[in-house]
Amino acid sequence: MAISLVPPQGDTFADYLGALRGRIDRRLALLLSASADENDLIGAAMKAALLSPGKRVRPLIVVLAGGQLGAREAPLLDLGCALEMVHAASLVLDDMPCMDDARLRRGLPTVHLRFGEDIAVLTAVALLGQAFKVISSASELPSLLRARLVGVLADAVGAQGLVRGQYQDLREGGWPRQVGEIAETNHLKTGALFAAALEMAAQVAHARDDVRMTLREAALELGQAFQLYDDLCDGASDAPLCKDLGKDAGKSTLVALLGQEAARQRLHGHVQRIDTLLSGVYGPDCLLLRLLCLLFPRLY
Amino acid sequence: MAISLVPPQGDTFADYLGALRGRIDRRLALLLSASADENDLIGAAMKAALLSPGKRVRPLIVVLAGGQLGAREAPLLDLGCALEMVHAASLVLDDMPCMDDARLRRGLPTVHLRFGEDIAVLTAVALLGQAFKVISSASELPSLLRARLVGVLADAVGAQGLVRGQYQDLREGGWPRQVGEIAETNHLKTGALFAAALEMAAQVAHARDDVRMTLREAALELGQAFQLYDDLCDGASDAPLCKDLGKDAGKSTLVALLGQEAARQRLHGHVQRIDTLLSGVYGPDCLLLRLLCLLFPRLY
Repeated sequence: MAISLVPPQGDTFADYLGALRGRIDRRLALLLSASADENDLIGAAMKAALLSPGKRVRPLIVVLAGGQLGAREAPLLDLGCALEMVHAASLVLDDMPCMDDARLRRGLPTVHLRFGEDIAVLTAVALLGQAFKVISSASELPSLLRARLVGVLADAVGAQGLVRGQYQDLREGGWPRQVGEIAETNHLKTGALFAAALEMAAQVAHARDDVRMTLREAALELGQAFQLYDDLCDGASDAPLCKDLGKDAGKSTLVALLGQEAARQRLHGHVQRIDTLLSGVYGPDCLLLRLLCLLFPRLY
Repeated sequence: MAISLVPPQGDTFADYLGALRGRIDRRLALLLSASADENDLIGAAMKAALLSPGKRVRPLIVVLAGGQLGAREAPLLDLGCALEMVHAASLVLDDMPCMDDARLRRGLPTVHLRFGEDIAVLTAVALLGQAFKVISSASELPSLLRARLVGVLADAVGAQGLVRGQYQDLREGGWPRQVGEIAETNHLKTGALFAAALEMAAQVAHARDDVRMTLREAALELGQAFQLYDDLCDGASDAPLCKDLGKDAGKSTLVALLGQEAARQRLHGHVQRIDTLLSGVYGPDCLLLRLLCLLFPRLY
């Protein structure tokens, strides 16, 4: 276990996580400044999309999962930042009028409302490009691994990953769907980047194949759990993670299909399986699981 | 010089180029089928965007430039296909209502008109992701080179490349601009992928640094020449390469600023410099120059 990942004596895990989020935010800002000129609208929009306050779940997953497997933090940070760039790009595009037509994101007007739709599209493309650039030039990693990780990111983005999930959600979300179909969309939409995060962590840590497979399975459960939690929050007013409340009205979510209580039980099932899978890899003191306790406060 | 690149005795260069275009088209279709499912709209839209008849200028440049420097055709083909995917993605986005609002591309309704704006955006993202995937898994190339070439592509796409060129064109194209500013936009919008094409060709062929620099310079001249040729065609009705005629009315192009005759002279200047630069690298029988004669028929 890498020493830096053990919270110092006396600090709480929340303090430790806050400090790690600070390192992630500083690294994001630095990596962005290498590609974006703040004096033009694209640079300003990239900054708004990427650096507005966020939970940084994907970078946290990469750093915690890879660090506790023995990998160094610096390359994990860069990979996490690349995933955050892709995530930010996907949010910019998802919010556009031709997609979810959202007006607010993280409490602020969405990028297309602030900067225009043309700038929003170009900003997303620039963030995607920069994400690949960051991985290709992560100089601490051997080149073979860098090339492989570019492939991992490309698969997570592409026609069988995020893109497909968003397509299913947009084009099929308004029709009656089976539980299995909704679960597949949730997997693609949310699980694709989680799976990439854990795959990257495992590869950088040179984890054994069985560990990689277990982490992959955990990522898919995590994607389902996140989407369910989000859907459950969509109907609530006091949920700490909520945004764009009521946006899913009319969408065939699992909550709409199964009802709140059954959806909640389903969520618990996912969380229990995540617990079992991650404990199998990391033992009883799994940092990722401690992260989840903080991210799903109403479940624990 | 790689044998396969010399047109066989008796065949014209045009025949040779036609056969090479056929190999490019077949490779594009194969690489696309690895990521896209034709049975869904995204797959169909990717196919429409990428495989509709086109000149394939960027793949031709990579294969001709790299092949005549001694590189094997297979990896050059893949790199060219990656560039064509990025080019196709940029056309899909440029045509959208929030950008150029074009209705026709290559004689067919634009992707957003055929499939919807949401699908158009997702298609462009999927094509971009697939382009990086293709480079990362070009197994004939050493991993260090693959990682580097991913960086070359990312730079060509990003906030200092295509994205910046399109931004300048959209946001500044309607204002009076100086010759230098228009030339910079043309360089970014068209030259960025040409520069990437020649950089990739040089790197795969392990060309010397001075050769790389000369090719880079030629690429920038080529970007200017292409954009000028396109602008000159925009006012003409008999030009063989024209599309979306009159689309640039009101834009501060070099043709609008300098007049047809001066723009034509400027174009000749670029072509002469390209001639000098490429002849310096390849000697008198330069395949790239023969390609240009065919692409700019009204200049020769």
